Amino acid sequence: MSELRKDPITGRWVVFATEFRQALNTAPQSGTPAGSLCPFCPGHESLTPPEIMAQRPANSVANDSKWEIRVIPNKFPVLRVEGLLDSHGDGMYDRLNGIGANEILIESPDHLHNLDNLPIEHGEQVLGILRDRFIDLKKDIRIQYIQAFKNHGEFAGANVAHPHIQMIGLPIVPKTVADELEGVRRYHAYRGRCIYCDLIRQDTRTPERLISENEFFIALAPYASRVPFETWILPKQHHADFTGLGKSELRACVRIMQEVLTRYQRVLKDPAYNWVLHTAPFQTADAHLYHWHIELIPRLARFTGFEWGTDYYINPTLPEDAARFLREASI
Amino acid sequence: MSELRKDPITGRWVVFATEFRQALNTAPQSGTPAGSLCPFCPGHESLTPPEIMAQRPANSVANDSKWEIRVIPNKFPVLRVEGLLDSHGDGMYDRLNGIGANEILIESPDHLHNLDNLPIEHGEQVLGILRDRFIDLKKDIRIQYIQAFKNHGEFAGANVAHPHIQMIGLPIVPKTVADELEGVRRYHAYRGRCIYCDLIRQDTRTPERLISENEFFIALAPYASRVPFETWILPKQHHADFTGLGKSELRACVRIMQEVLTRYQRVLKDPAYNWVLHTAPFQTADAHLYHWHIELIPRLARFTGFEWGTDYYINPTLPEDAARFLREASI
Repeated sequence: MSELRKDPITGRWVVFATEFRQALNTAPQSGTPAGSLCPFCPGHESLTPPEIMAQRPANSVANDSKWEIRVIPNKFPVLRVEGLLDSHGDGMYDRLNGIGANEILIESPDHLHNLDNLPIEHGEQVLGILRDRFIDLKKDIRIQYIQAFKNHGEFAGANVAHPHIQMIGLPIVPKTVADELEGVRRYHAYRGRCIYCDLIRQDTRTPERLISENEFFIALAPYASRVPFETWILPKQHHADFTGLGKSELRACVRIMQEVLTRYQRVLKDPAYNWVLHTAPFQTADAHLYHWHIELIPRLARFTGFEWGTDYYINPTLPEDAARFLREASI
Repeated sequence: MSELRKDPITGRWVVFATEFRQALNTAPQSGTPAGSLCPFCPGHESLTPPEIMAQRPANSVANDSKWEIRVIPNKFPVLRVEGLLDSHGDGMYDRLNGIGANEILIESPDHLHNLDNLPIEHGEQVLGILRDRFIDLKKDIRIQYIQAFKNHGEFAGANVAHPHIQMIGLPIVPKTVADELEGVRRYHAYRGRCIYCDLIRQDTRTPERLISENEFFIALAPYASRVPFETWILPKQHHADFTGLGKSELRACVRIMQEVLTRYQRVLKDPAYNWVLHTAPFQTADAHLYHWHIELIPRLARFTGFEWGTDYYINPTLPEDAARFLREASI
């Protein structure tokens, strides 16, 4: 069974996942062609655990090959649903059993097409299913947070090339989200407003870091971008929680994601990237202060000892330049 | 000129370094052979700015090719010594001019030999010169912290293969060190002791994570290792500040570093790695509570969206296993 351990100095948790090691050893490589060995291609459903849910035509049944979108448990889960957290000390250290959830959303039967190449209706269904999995997993009171993320390209840590989104349900709130929520609280205590809302207002008034916007969402290059072409996608109105998204907002969200990814394609030529979804933690009293968003991180450079030592970043590209390049790309 | 910008939500700083971009474009690649194009090999002193200090025989003069250890300013500095910080707001955002220092310590004339292959006396002189540069740079009251780090191997972000250590003097305390110091304070307020001292005591009593120790230093695989084979080297007695090291401690420090790097060689086969030095910030009133140390990070895997989204880590190898492999390697 996996184990969660807390660094006693910084409070940072680490998931020790021995089954994950097995996955690293047995996973087909990123360059795996469609068909042959890809466990996520249609016809290979027996290579994965039975599906949790799927988008399928009326004439198909669970786990046959006619699916359009498919959610499965990770065959080599980082965390498992079964068992007890069994929080206890180990001398001065703290540990938990590796309880949580680890699901994979396979975006389409197509081995090559990512979100930016799929029809808008299909993308809307992908995000809708992601939202529905969040709503379902939230019912488990042991889960404090779900980290949804995408790894695209080997350089971004993708083990399987077939486009998919991962969800890891955690019994603890991630440090990144806790830090952001703390910043949101500090600003709210001082100014009585949401810092993300204020940031959207400022970056709309002086739009040099603006990449795109539509009726519900805005995409911008953040003022202190950690890496070249980092992009944040935020709802323009204050919404703490991703699971509150309605049909038209889902569609607007997919539209702006597709647009940013297409602009990445044009400017950066099929870059490896990650995106991560940050939403309000589930069992935190003032989580309504949070402002949910998606962070896109092109993986163009390797991190050095400076980033490790400081948690600060050296970025050779100003966000104003990155935003201009992306805005001016013809799509 | 470079610019420092602060993320208004998390307080994380980013260095926007346009000259650094130039360095990325013009630096010889990691695989550069000795001689020919390497700017750090003897005889190529004119390719670097004039030296700040050097270890040289009596019959040599500054910037000739007879040096044994050499410290130079980075030709493409991330931060510059000249100028004013000029801290000011940019609407709701905060910025500073890119003031600081960026020096490179070239470890030896040898293009291939790292610390683990150099004579112990030479290694002691390398660390001694590093200490002396810290003492000198600390006199600049604008510099709050010096991040010393090593990138070994292209995968760890090394642009120039010739072994060297970088120092970046910062006008702000790194987030990582501030987080660690905050943890040290919390523990000290509750228990009246240093958390690192207690951690050394516990890991010596149950030595399953112990890798090595000598009269002054201990090397251990931390309980919540972020990556496989992460190693911390700590002084066994409480010392806040790296610059307090005397001659025999310098030698003991090099000896344990050489030993751990040699064990990495045996077990991990010339891995890319970073090491970072964490010491007490210079102008913090209670910085004496801190416990200086070196963190070694083998770079075996790529980070995924999970690490980006959470600042938590998924590690397939328990530190008890890593420590055993390293201990049992014959050196």
